[in-house]
Amino acid sequence: MSELATALTAALGGRWSHVRDSLRAQDPALFAPPAGEPTTEEYRAHTTAQLALLAEQPYARDGVLPSQGGTGDLGANVTAFEMLGHGDLSLWVKAGVHFGLYGGAVTNLGLPRHQRWVDAMLDLSVPGCFAMTETGHGSNVQQLGTTATYDAATDELVVHTPSVTARKDYIGNAARDARMAAVFAQLVTDEGEHGVHCVLVPIRDARGRVRRGVTIGDDGPKAGLRGVDNGRLTFDHVRVPRENLLGRYGDLDDRGRYTSPIDNPNRRFFTMLGTLVRGRISVAAGAGAATRSALAIATRYAEHRRQFGAPGSEREVAVLDYRVHQRKLLPAVATSYALAFAQNELVELMHEVQTSTTPVPEQQQRELEARAAAIKVASTSHATAAIQTAREACGGAGYLSVNRLVDLKADTDVFTTFEGDNTVLLQLVGKGLLTEFGEGFQELGTLGRLRFGAGVVTEALLERTSTKSLVRRLIAAAPSRDTDAAGGSGLGRGRQLELFADRERHLLEGVARRLQRALRADDQFAVFNDAQDHLVAAARAHVDRVVLEAFAAGVEACTDPAARALLGTVCDLYALSTIEANRGWYLEHERLTPVHSKQVVAAVNVLCGQLRPHARDLVDGFGIPDAWLGTELLEPLEETVDREPTADPAAVA
Amino acid sequence: MSELATALTAALGGRWSHVRDSLRAQDPALFAPPAGEPTTEEYRAHTTAQLALLAEQPYARDGVLPSQGGTGDLGANVTAFEMLGHGDLSLWVKAGVHFGLYGGAVTNLGLPRHQRWVDAMLDLSVPGCFAMTETGHGSNVQQLGTTATYDAATDELVVHTPSVTARKDYIGNAARDARMAAVFAQLVTDEGEHGVHCVLVPIRDARGRVRRGVTIGDDGPKAGLRGVDNGRLTFDHVRVPRENLLGRYGDLDDRGRYTSPIDNPNRRFFTMLGTLVRGRISVAAGAGAATRSALAIATRYAEHRRQFGAPGSEREVAVLDYRVHQRKLLPAVATSYALAFAQNELVELMHEVQTSTTPVPEQQQRELEARAAAIKVASTSHATAAIQTAREACGGAGYLSVNRLVDLKADTDVFTTFEGDNTVLLQLVGKGLLTEFGEGFQELGTLGRLRFGAGVVTEALLERTSTKSLVRRLIAAAPSRDTDAAGGSGLGRGRQLELFADRERHLLEGVARRLQRALRADDQFAVFNDAQDHLVAAARAHVDRVVLEAFAAGVEACTDPAARALLGTVCDLYALSTIEANRGWYLEHERLTPVHSKQVVAAVNVLCGQLRPHARDLVDGFGIPDAWLGTELLEPLEETVDREPTADPAAVA
Repeated sequence: MSELATALTAALGGRWSHVRDSLRAQDPALFAPPAGEPTTEEYRAHTTAQLALLAEQPYARDGVLPSQGGTGDLGANVTAFEMLGHGDLSLWVKAGVHFGLYGGAVTNLGLPRHQRWVDAMLDLSVPGCFAMTETGHGSNVQQLGTTATYDAATDELVVHTPSVTARKDYIGNAARDARMAAVFAQLVTDEGEHGVHCVLVPIRDARGRVRRGVTIGDDGPKAGLRGVDNGRLTFDHVRVPRENLLGRYGDLDDRGRYTSPIDNPNRRFFTMLGTLVRGRISVAAGAGAATRSALAIATRYAEHRRQFGAPGSEREVAVLDYRVHQRKLLPAVATSYALAFAQNELVELMHEVQTSTTPVPEQQQRELEARAAAIKVASTSHATAAIQTAREACGGAGYLSVNRLVDLKADTDVFTTFEGDNTVLLQLVGKGLLTEFGEGFQELGTLGRLRFGAGVVTEALLERTSTKSLVRRLIAAAPSRDTDAAGGSGLGRGRQLELFADRERHLLEGVARRLQRALRADDQFAVFNDAQDHLVAAARAHVDRVVLEAFAAGVEACTDPAARALLGTVCDLYALSTIEANRGWYLEHERLTPVHSKQVVAAVNVLCGQLRPHARDLVDGFGIPDAWLGTELLEPLEETVDREPTADPAAVA
Repeated sequence: MSELATALTAALGGRWSHVRDSLRAQDPALFAPPAGEPTTEEYRAHTTAQLALLAEQPYARDGVLPSQGGTGDLGANVTAFEMLGHGDLSLWVKAGVHFGLYGGAVTNLGLPRHQRWVDAMLDLSVPGCFAMTETGHGSNVQQLGTTATYDAATDELVVHTPSVTARKDYIGNAARDARMAAVFAQLVTDEGEHGVHCVLVPIRDARGRVRRGVTIGDDGPKAGLRGVDNGRLTFDHVRVPRENLLGRYGDLDDRGRYTSPIDNPNRRFFTMLGTLVRGRISVAAGAGAATRSALAIATRYAEHRRQFGAPGSEREVAVLDYRVHQRKLLPAVATSYALAFAQNELVELMHEVQTSTTPVPEQQQRELEARAAAIKVASTSHATAAIQTAREACGGAGYLSVNRLVDLKADTDVFTTFEGDNTVLLQLVGKGLLTEFGEGFQELGTLGRLRFGAGVVTEALLERTSTKSLVRRLIAAAPSRDTDAAGGSGLGRGRQLELFADRERHLLEGVARRLQRALRADDQFAVFNDAQDHLVAAARAHVDRVVLEAFAAGVEACTDPAARALLGTVCDLYALSTIEANRGWYLEHERLTPVHSKQVVAAVNVLCGQLRPHARDLVDGFGIPDAWLGTELLEPLEETVDREPTADPAAVA
């Protein structure tokens, strides 16, 4: 690896780069898929065995606070999980389900009385699953159908599935391995309904037999993630001790009386969900790693794959020398760099918030959740698009399983869906941005929060977008036009940041104006629905801005001069290709003139050309050991005839 | 099915709708994938058995001219193959490889002496494969490395693989079943090299044993198409009789002297390839069918899947009522309609050209090839995007194999690669458009053809784009502004057609100007490369135009008033969502004002809203029997608890 690539790896490493190194030093076979063509059962067994080996490593303990028996190095935990995303994603999901989702529920929603389940989670003696989603309720978790009803006669909770749509579905670890389920259900007592809470329900005994009243189905084959046993859980009046309620945000005393530290049921629900934010951050992490693997493979291949000759040349041209091929891969590589910096920033924020020894202001917790949703959307939608591009860029070779790209695609395909459907999350992000600025106004219910003037939004947003002193400084320092900047576009970093913030601000103002009408309208749904695509567009603009700001900060923080210069060009490419993709908006709103817009398109080409000689450094900079990439595409074939085994060794004349 | 849907099916049926009906009436099990979780060998055996049943049907014979023992109903053949695209795509590819590619080589490149191989192809007594692609030569077929050298001593051809990059690769039917390979190789005689020709090489004997000198490898698992045995062929000085040369465009007499009806080797090569155009047309057909299957599934699901409640309503909202969901699915449905009409037009053109009893002008043959490339690109790139969208629109349910979307995605993923990589094909289309207009000028070599004035290009193109009297009439009749037209965009059909043609024309002129510089440049490759993205953009604009024109003609030809009105709105949505996607270009080139551009965006929303009540009719109109869709997502779950078998029936307390 070149010095430059090494410096890039260091820049991408972030605060927990030592954790990354410790993973890189491990035997990649520990995290590899099974060899050959395993049956589903063989694949699942392989993944389960790998999970047991992983449980012996220190990483899971980093995800638990010292008060619950861990080290509390939460950032290390998520970083290790990110690195696992370069390995087999079945193991990655299986580990995420048990340690992350199930473990997250027990540690974040549980009380000291649940410590033994924390211990049994860490040593994997009781494998768990996270039973939230139902067949009929995916995104709308607040309306789950499963009930947990308190029975005073026996001091138990009765967990029940009232209809097929309330059946728990797609539950990882449920079809084969889990003994305990963290079941999200409507808590019902004599006093009434208390909303969604989480209850521990044993679903198998120590010998793996399904417990009475529990029906377990198998979701069967999926696009990918073959090693993960997704299943369906149906409960027929299953009784568990009252103490199994993970009662941190709402508990029952020994007479069945409900108490909660949070009075407002809506706020209580979202607070509970908010504590589970690490799942979303981890999905973003894994998506980022998988995408970098795919882009490393496709870029390496494009450097040695040759096709068609240039006039007057004997040798064919490396496909990465073609502009259309550069345009496929290099902006995607630039986006992966941008997201890696944004991810590191997010993980640091999460670490600070969740390990704080003093109470964290609700505002900060909400910012963390909003940022996690934003980066999860950005990272997983980039994964879907970029891995597809990588497959296509490798042609027929890309379609063979042996070259890994198709497994990366199939395994990550559901990332845009699980841990929050991306379209729903974007609306969450958008709404969060709106309500945030309405906070100073009277609470008038969900829609009422939007009753504020557009001028105020602008001011509040301006203040927010400039919270980072770096961004403020870069914008302030931006000359109105710097002709040579960023591939001749004239858009230096400051102007790029301004254009991104401007798009977000303008879109949000537009949505706010539209939604204000909802207050006066007879059909509030119609008004909301009419603004829905605007809301999503505003959220996308927000995501783009926070990612660019993180990348800009990452460039500034890089101390190696050569790496810093190269990162600057990569950041330019991310910024300009994003502006190019949205140039319809910039032109419609007269932020770019037609002439300037064409210059942006031309500048993306120039930047691709500038980065072409560094393509290998850029993907080496991802810091993925070759053996982890698991493909035959990294080096050119030697020009000798190979002798493969014949399909039938009894060859005849 | 509603009357309206029935009328839509009739409109989409085209000239060979009776063939579609005959396929619809068949048992879908004949074309279904194997049940359960078959091993690769079991899947391949299943597909092979299905192929044998298919060989008993009349469709393959329709693909062969009467002079070679067929019926010569080529359009019926391709239409039947299109309908097969609603079934398991492994069978579809396997049939396409044997009857279409291998059969196409034998029938189109062979001579009367090869009739027995035509017969053995039709009755499947000799399964064949099409060995063109090599590991090192995918797109650049002219530079294949395999050689076929004439040995005068024995009057044989010696077929040889000189290096690993010349190994035949990804060859369907090769790894398990084929007995004969149509091998494309450089023909060499004492007189010298004659370029790429096709030779029949037996690779297995009647008992399935691999023949001496032939080495067969297995490409192993792929993303999808598990029933297709893709393999690698290496030849070690394999001898075949001279007569095995498929010599229609270049033959050897009994003294090994080369003769060809076409003197120019370049023209000979492209003429040979041109006769194989039906393969590309068939891929477009299958991609269209698979995409319609996916969109039918996702749209049916979105009609009954409910999530989140509207204010003041008890029941949750059907997800297709949300604007962002409409925007995902309905423009994709509109594009599928557009492509179906374009496909029908293409198949008719192919049928006329290939069944003509009088010699076809070269210009017409080249137009057919260009059109086939254009529609292949449009149909397969739409498949990749729309099937992905359909999967995501069905959330977790979409990720389960039982619901079919992931298999449709995995199986079709390679369609953008095989039968011509889409990016390469777009350049072919673009170059074809340019050289076509240079035809009147002196031949100055490939680049020389571009030496003409931009004014002439414009004129020639205008003439071309208005060849269809319908299009000319619609454009002439277009009022400069019709405020109510197309969702309030003011863009009626005539203006839409004009905007599409204008974009193509302007982009082509720009490319022509840029390439003219290449004639004066020292580094011609650099100039070409610098214009490559423009060339691709021009080709995309061309594809968009021909598709819109076909759709407009389809609307005009529809005789059912209600269906015609609805198709008109669908065509508006296709046109406006395409303009919306390219509005950056229209704004940059001041074809749309900022205000008008925003109206186009708003109009897409309006049109989605207008089509929402007809969504079910539109996908029913695709005419795919429910059983062929092979999914559980068509109807809502009944609201009762189901009792699935437990994973372990020995449930314990």
